[in-house]
Amino acid sequence: MMRAGPSQEEIRRHNLGVLLRHVHLGGPTSRAELTTRMGLNRSTIMALTADLTAAGLVREELPRETGRAGRPSLVVRPESARVYVLAFDIGVDRLVAARVGLGGVILDRREAIRRRGPLVLDEVTAQLGSFARQILKKTRSDTICVGVGVSFSGGVRSGDGMVRYAPNMGADDTPLGEALAERLALGVPVAVGNDANLGALAEQARGVGVGCRDLIYLHGDVGIGGGIIAGGQLLGGRDGYGGEVGHMVVNSGGRPCGCGARGCLEAEVGERALLEAAGRFGRQVGRDAVRAVVDAADRGDVVAQDALARVGDWLGLGVANLVKIFNPEMVIFGGMLREIYLGAAAQVRSRVATDVMPASREGLRLRTPVLGDDTTLVGAAELAFAQVLADPLDTLARVGA
Amino acid sequence: MMRAGPSQEEIRRHNLGVLLRHVHLGGPTSRAELTTRMGLNRSTIMALTADLTAAGLVREELPRETGRAGRPSLVVRPESARVYVLAFDIGVDRLVAARVGLGGVILDRREAIRRRGPLVLDEVTAQLGSFARQILKKTRSDTICVGVGVSFSGGVRSGDGMVRYAPNMGADDTPLGEALAERLALGVPVAVGNDANLGALAEQARGVGVGCRDLIYLHGDVGIGGGIIAGGQLLGGRDGYGGEVGHMVVNSGGRPCGCGARGCLEAEVGERALLEAAGRFGRQVGRDAVRAVVDAADRGDVVAQDALARVGDWLGLGVANLVKIFNPEMVIFGGMLREIYLGAAAQVRSRVATDVMPASREGLRLRTPVLGDDTTLVGAAELAFAQVLADPLDTLARVGA
Repeated sequence: MMRAGPSQEEIRRHNLGVLLRHVHLGGPTSRAELTTRMGLNRSTIMALTADLTAAGLVREELPRETGRAGRPSLVVRPESARVYVLAFDIGVDRLVAARVGLGGVILDRREAIRRRGPLVLDEVTAQLGSFARQILKKTRSDTICVGVGVSFSGGVRSGDGMVRYAPNMGADDTPLGEALAERLALGVPVAVGNDANLGALAEQARGVGVGCRDLIYLHGDVGIGGGIIAGGQLLGGRDGYGGEVGHMVVNSGGRPCGCGARGCLEAEVGERALLEAAGRFGRQVGRDAVRAVVDAADRGDVVAQDALARVGDWLGLGVANLVKIFNPEMVIFGGMLREIYLGAAAQVRSRVATDVMPASREGLRLRTPVLGDDTTLVGAAELAFAQVLADPLDTLARVGA
Repeated sequence: MMRAGPSQEEIRRHNLGVLLRHVHLGGPTSRAELTTRMGLNRSTIMALTADLTAAGLVREELPRETGRAGRPSLVVRPESARVYVLAFDIGVDRLVAARVGLGGVILDRREAIRRRGPLVLDEVTAQLGSFARQILKKTRSDTICVGVGVSFSGGVRSGDGMVRYAPNMGADDTPLGEALAERLALGVPVAVGNDANLGALAEQARGVGVGCRDLIYLHGDVGIGGGIIAGGQLLGGRDGYGGEVGHMVVNSGGRPCGCGARGCLEAEVGERALLEAAGRFGRQVGRDAVRAVVDAADRGDVVAQDALARVGDWLGLGVANLVKIFNPEMVIFGGMLREIYLGAAAQVRSRVATDVMPASREGLRLRTPVLGDDTTLVGAAELAFAQVLADPLDTLARVGA
């Protein structure tokens, strides 16, 4: 707010990033369209495109057909096959690795089951390192990796990727980002983010939340995390731990939570709460177990129906609180919460209608992710792309392209 | 994010606002200091200052003493006596009006007691209109009013100042901004904001929160409101109703709340909850009644101590939730909550320590407002100044200066 105007060179670098972001998020776009959207003249767009083309980040080609007379405007297309990031998703029950091309194309994807239990840094980095080697072996030599992004189910310090807490992964103060960077030895930055924060960014960038400036993404992975976009910005807080809505107490004196408190949203709505209420705890765990409860309720199983209704009511109370606090346009239920929401939407909606002042819930939409179970993985990829989109040429220089 | 770079004229207008904001918030500032802080060269600062001086917004003068050799740098000073706003604070129990000069100087201030009960638009606008006439009668003819700001204890729609809900004022869908603009007939914009939001802005601009990018201001005025600054921006949400933390349910199935729900923070911590717990409900109301409970507890009254401990514990639970959600640098307790917090700080701190993960509460400061009971009034003045700080010359032209 207190800064003076930018220099010509800063404006050019900014515009290069803006143009690249347009084609990264919007796909192939004509020069004419970019001219309109960016509010710049044609010669500037041409110069910017030439710079990005020379750097190998985009290429220009004739559109397939225009349907109009006259010379068609060239289409600018991201170099998805050439420029990519590695994205990793570390969940409680699974490890996913992917190569994602500029433009958000998943080019290669590997997944392994993770045994529940404390995070063993060596094991996780070994598995992800092995995935990375397999993936890199299959890439052509003229391709370039511009970053690595990691989604993690816990509280991550912004800046250095240090895991500060992870009640469901038994990992406190674990230098995940550093250890993974060392193991991969790719010479590119490794950025680690909280899974729910990345889910929020992914759904806003490429999912059901496109165009939303105020949205809440709730992610269920045994526990519950939240990613909040307020006024177009991801809510980080002082050190990046903002959005920990899973540990908002909704039932004072309620069920004990892994964080040490009682009656947290996670304790009342998480996997264990649902399975215990349904009399199924200890038999099966994970998404399949949650799905089995929802399926049983669908088939008329009264115990499963009651369990879902109970959990759905607490979920609704939590959502109602968040709607009052954030006045969002949209709440998105991802991960395991997708199943729970779909099975208990009536309870959730009823709580929101009862508890929230009409003004705060006008126009509110409750949704599930368009990106499905890849939401957090896609978010990790976007985290990895953030740098090249902020300053394309500088980033390429730094990764040695 | 998708915009191109600004034009030279946009940069100049932006810089005029930035310079004016510097002296508005920071007080008289030397040209040399402005050159350093704004990162612009001396001739640009001189030209900007000349424009603002010609517009009558600032003046330049020699500093009193420099203690250094050489020609002293001229000091740029806001024209506090000439350029002002009218600020109004509509609380449950009082109406306040003030003339506030550029730089934040309260030049004139009037206050009346408000009888509790539903908001009668005619009564309130008549009282505030009368205050305004008294204030304006005492201003010199070469002064200029650049805006009107109003703080209101309820949910206000951003844009047009429509009160959408106010459980403690009995005012739903009341066109407060419009009615007041009509009554005042000053030909300047009337902006209405939620009291807690304005308190947050005021404490960040001029109070205990200067320099904080993430803070929560909790305001007690019979009920409880919240103003949240996240990543440097006031949290508004889709339509400006964000920050309604008073209606966050902390005690599911607890005490009934004016909003229709049960167990809201306001229902467990508000004035009525405290007075009932202390066995004093129905005798006395307002700040004096709250102070009396705190004083009695101080003197060793066990009933009052228990009441404060109970209310303080719920307040602590609410604060703990908010710290987990926002990872703020500071929580500020204003209005009636100032007294409650000072009387029950131990309970609040203990809850935060017990319930919040260490990472989320590292460096957290719990504070009371520097601006005391004028926090919301000062916030209303800042709201009124916002336009002239955003575009000084255009605003002056629009108000006919």
